[in-house]
Amino acid sequence: MSSESTIGVGMLGLGTVGGGVARILGEGAAMLSERAGGAIQLRRALVRDLDKARAAVVARELLTTDGDAVVNDPSVNVVVEVMGGIEPARSLVLQALRGGRRVVTANKALVASHGPELMAAAREGGGSLHYEAAAAGAIPIVKAVRESLAGNHVEALLGIVNGTCNYILSEMSSGGAAFSDALADAQRLGYAEADPTSDVGGEDSAFKLALLAGLAFDSHVDVGQIHCEGITGVRAADIAMARELGMVIKLLAVARPSGSGAELRVHPAMVPAGHPLAAVHGAFNAVFVRGDAAGELMFYGQGAGMMPTASAVVADLVDACRDLRRGTSAWAPGSQGALQVVPAADSTGRFYISCRVADRPGVLASIAGAFADRSVSIETCIQKGRDADPVDLVFVTHESREGDVRAALQAIGTLDMVREVASVIRLMG
Amino acid sequence: MSSESTIGVGMLGLGTVGGGVARILGEGAAMLSERAGGAIQLRRALVRDLDKARAAVVARELLTTDGDAVVNDPSVNVVVEVMGGIEPARSLVLQALRGGRRVVTANKALVASHGPELMAAAREGGGSLHYEAAAAGAIPIVKAVRESLAGNHVEALLGIVNGTCNYILSEMSSGGAAFSDALADAQRLGYAEADPTSDVGGEDSAFKLALLAGLAFDSHVDVGQIHCEGITGVRAADIAMARELGMVIKLLAVARPSGSGAELRVHPAMVPAGHPLAAVHGAFNAVFVRGDAAGELMFYGQGAGMMPTASAVVADLVDACRDLRRGTSAWAPGSQGALQVVPAADSTGRFYISCRVADRPGVLASIAGAFADRSVSIETCIQKGRDADPVDLVFVTHESREGDVRAALQAIGTLDMVREVASVIRLMG
Repeated sequence: MSSESTIGVGMLGLGTVGGGVARILGEGAAMLSERAGGAIQLRRALVRDLDKARAAVVARELLTTDGDAVVNDPSVNVVVEVMGGIEPARSLVLQALRGGRRVVTANKALVASHGPELMAAAREGGGSLHYEAAAAGAIPIVKAVRESLAGNHVEALLGIVNGTCNYILSEMSSGGAAFSDALADAQRLGYAEADPTSDVGGEDSAFKLALLAGLAFDSHVDVGQIHCEGITGVRAADIAMARELGMVIKLLAVARPSGSGAELRVHPAMVPAGHPLAAVHGAFNAVFVRGDAAGELMFYGQGAGMMPTASAVVADLVDACRDLRRGTSAWAPGSQGALQVVPAADSTGRFYISCRVADRPGVLASIAGAFADRSVSIETCIQKGRDADPVDLVFVTHESREGDVRAALQAIGTLDMVREVASVIRLMG
Repeated sequence: MSSESTIGVGMLGLGTVGGGVARILGEGAAMLSERAGGAIQLRRALVRDLDKARAAVVARELLTTDGDAVVNDPSVNVVVEVMGGIEPARSLVLQALRGGRRVVTANKALVASHGPELMAAAREGGGSLHYEAAAAGAIPIVKAVRESLAGNHVEALLGIVNGTCNYILSEMSSGGAAFSDALADAQRLGYAEADPTSDVGGEDSAFKLALLAGLAFDSHVDVGQIHCEGITGVRAADIAMARELGMVIKLLAVARPSGSGAELRVHPAMVPAGHPLAAVHGAFNAVFVRGDAAGELMFYGQGAGMMPTASAVVADLVDACRDLRRGTSAWAPGSQGALQVVPAADSTGRFYISCRVADRPGVLASIAGAFADRSVSIETCIQKGRDADPVDLVFVTHESREGDVRAALQAIGTLDMVREVASVIRLMG
């Protein structure tokens, strides 16, 4: 295409994020045209209902209920997918990519579950796939890992990438609320969905981790191999104990190189109070990365919401337009093939363990013995609620193999003076 | 150039940062070649002394003491300037740019003082100028403002961009040390230079602010117009009082749009303890940006040092190589022309003011009257050291015009019961 011609945009979806994108395309037209090296024009938009009232001013004649009409429109060069869900988003994006179009998507589930297929389609069509908005909303972490860390081996990536969970954990920390009360608050305030399963169960974080780990390790990640624990089991007592230990509890998405592969995990973790991730409050997100050259970096911002997500979509759109004019594509990860994910049992770390036990002589000796049998050594032991029955016994282990810790806990769970192994939470390592 | 050919790099300087760049080019060759779309090869390096022992393994025959030989070498496509200083760096970079070469520089003084001239030379030669490493070391803030915020109007940019000052202020905060002792410590530990003037006086931060404000407001910034106060006047008593007010003192580089121009200032500021910038400790840097779409973002990392700076240089180098293969250039700011800088006196803010006064009846009335005469209204007044003489009187103003505050303080300084206006520190607004 000539370098002066206007670039046509087709949108799949014109809901909250889509409306934000349309607004920036309209109000920021002059600014974007300068950054992109030419005008950008919205030419077609897939909607479910042509007659629905919309905040974004999009001319009625651009709307269609036919997705094929968007991705095959010859005047559309870049397709923006903000409809969500797997189908029909997947089929439409594949069609657009195979037809040589650039695609910008905010759809983490789609990219995490079908990344290699989409990237292959982009190569086939000579286009490219952009997914900054899918990883952490407004935070430009995809660009940072892909471009700014080009000269680095990533040694660790630790993300707070789910605002719902961070909001709930922040509320539990500041007010001492129980999980269920904090969740109800979050739902009332719009920080959590009516069905919060994907957020509080960790799945949403796992999708984002799949995207980021793929970039960090130049490989394809099978999201199903990510060890995933949510925050539903985090108790107010754990948060109080964390404070006593100088920690706060955050839901972390963790990627670390290990052998020829990597550890990939989503789980609640105790973060030292002085660490920059500990200062990420409320619905904010942050990704902490350590590169062998850059050292420690952290990227902080809003991981969701209409305009923050739209901001990331538009940044990708400008990149896509620049690539399009140049006839080139952004670097896409995958040269190392499928990432070999180390089983969680084989990873090592320090663990916080809280048990409820009968206050009887010998209980500590029995539990300590069970840990020792599995070579798990104890760094700290705190007994709470003396003269109560059951009492809380809290342990913090030294660096241990997770499989050994789990095996020890299984044995401990069968001891008759142990009522319950109430919590097992990793320390951020 | 053909897309498969190797890109030749010429280096101006092979000191600390240059050595780090050479190391990454050597050890990371395969990774970089994949990211850059082809091999990158070091072909010439300007050094002062051919025989000096160097950590970086660079073949002796690539070294030269003649800068012209680097920037005119026909096998050199990209020039990396890491020699520092204005001349001969400026002349060599101009020559390289006019000759059509891409230039990557870590030289903030050069870009801040001669940006428009360098960018014009880049346009003339059809090349481009990359300066990520000049702004905040390893933190990819240039790329973030230039690319990731493409769809945003920047509403505020607040940076902790000098590690020496942040180290000193952190030490003063945690240990109660006086400035001079903390500086001596920083020098002993290598966080401050033997001559720390440019760091503690704020000049280094002003250079970086000039680069970032130029990108944020798409304009050229005259660094001489940046209002600049350093940290030499910050007293241990101010830091203690800040803590009492729920604040920490940081040296901030501030850019805010104002009318058709912007406020640009470097000065110590009181930052609320809960703000993410308050959690930036030691020699770390961070830049906080608010975009109208993205909302609040913060970028944290190492602002200096051999490998962190080299990491940013290499990221720019990969971008430059990609641009070169495409025959395109990165967007360069300046379309809005010279940025109109609002005089500090016309900016508004809240101020912390500490006075030493005689403990006599009427002193508070006189000072309060002088503030009122200039329409400066007082939010908080704290008297310290009762029964001492002089006593410390601390005021925090409501939002006020800085010129009015300064005029009131001039009048207050002449009152005979006022021994000294000891400190005037802005609150982060």
